[in-house]
Amino acid sequence: MNINELKVGLIGGTGEEGRGLALRWAMAGARVAIGSRTIERARTTADELNQLVPHNPVSYGENSRVIAESEFVLLTVPFAHAAATLESHKQDFRAGAILIDITVPVSFEQGRVRYVELAEGSASEHLRTRLRDEIPLVAAFKTEPAHLLADASAKLDCDVLVASDDKEAKARVMEAVKFIEGLRPVDAGTLYSARTLERMTVLAIGINRRYKIKTACYRVMGL
Amino acid sequence: MNINELKVGLIGGTGEEGRGLALRWAMAGARVAIGSRTIERARTTADELNQLVPHNPVSYGENSRVIAESEFVLLTVPFAHAAATLESHKQDFRAGAILIDITVPVSFEQGRVRYVELAEGSASEHLRTRLRDEIPLVAAFKTEPAHLLADASAKLDCDVLVASDDKEAKARVMEAVKFIEGLRPVDAGTLYSARTLERMTVLAIGINRRYKIKTACYRVMGL
Repeated sequence: MNINELKVGLIGGTGEEGRGLALRWAMAGARVAIGSRTIERARTTADELNQLVPHNPVSYGENSRVIAESEFVLLTVPFAHAAATLESHKQDFRAGAILIDITVPVSFEQGRVRYVELAEGSASEHLRTRLRDEIPLVAAFKTEPAHLLADASAKLDCDVLVASDDKEAKARVMEAVKFIEGLRPVDAGTLYSARTLERMTVLAIGINRRYKIKTACYRVMGL
Repeated sequence: MNINELKVGLIGGTGEEGRGLALRWAMAGARVAIGSRTIERARTTADELNQLVPHNPVSYGENSRVIAESEFVLLTVPFAHAAATLESHKQDFRAGAILIDITVPVSFEQGRVRYVELAEGSASEHLRTRLRDEIPLVAAFKTEPAHLLADASAKLDCDVLVASDDKEAKARVMEAVKFIEGLRPVDAGTLYSARTLERMTVLAIGINRRYKIKTACYRVMGL
């Protein structure tokens, strides 16, 4: 895989997690496009990123166009909008595209951070049903803290737990993750594992609160 | 806390996880007792451990006696026997004792490792209801691999995620974990987090299988 040929599109790429991942993929050398519902917001984020990574300019566009032109489509909208976003863009994915789902359903009721239980077991399994069968869905970057990704000066030291029912798509995403400095892909198995990965994010949010940090992430030791 | 005054009892201490934890606590300098339903089995395990850690002899006894004499009671029976074991020993816990629950409900149907969903949300929450109210339950060591703990020559490099609704008991367990070389306690919040910790064990078992290792454990980075 040549990273400089890989087209990565970020749907909802103007949020902190989206910007952070766009930044890291751009730093890795991928061809990155920021998608948004309004082209002005996409441009603002792309402009910001281009200040940080001038040698590898990031492009931008409306979500539909970015999805149509990307091989890795990263869904980085808040979970509450994820299903509707996917459904309205169902036909936009090109053949061979892979959806990378980073969403985590979380609530902050009464000051407590809680995982929102879904009938399908996880956000990834929930969103899988909103996508055309031939488009693989890969869960990844669920446990990477937005704050850390978005800080260009922060060195990463985290594992990216990658789960999918499509082994080939999972392998492609894992290969591409290796290009991002400080991130190591770990094969987390089938999409069933998203139930664990999403809860690990909720646990990390709790750890961040208790330890007054914003940087908690995981490494699998003994590998 | 003086570790050499801490009495640690292992219920079902003849299994691999129990033996491994007994070994690590003995190496740390705690006063360790192996409990079993039959005193002969407890003695066999204690004898084995005393070969490995001759400077800090491990004692043994029937479960009832070991529970009555321990401040930290580690429940290391398989999950399938955990509730019944606790219920039959409900009255044996002394005042001030803490139950450390390491159980994980897991099934291996059709070659697939799966988390067994419980009505209460986790094994720890399930077992909490089987214990007298005044005995705190602390979830810990859920994600530490038995194989790694039981191998005296293996250096540990894992975080012990510790969860409890009783803050004081949690703090005591975290303090004591620090005495075990290579393990770092991390405050994982309330017992609700056991839902995540137990699933992380299932994920680690899957990672072990895919990577053909037996040593996968976790570290929280950025702390």
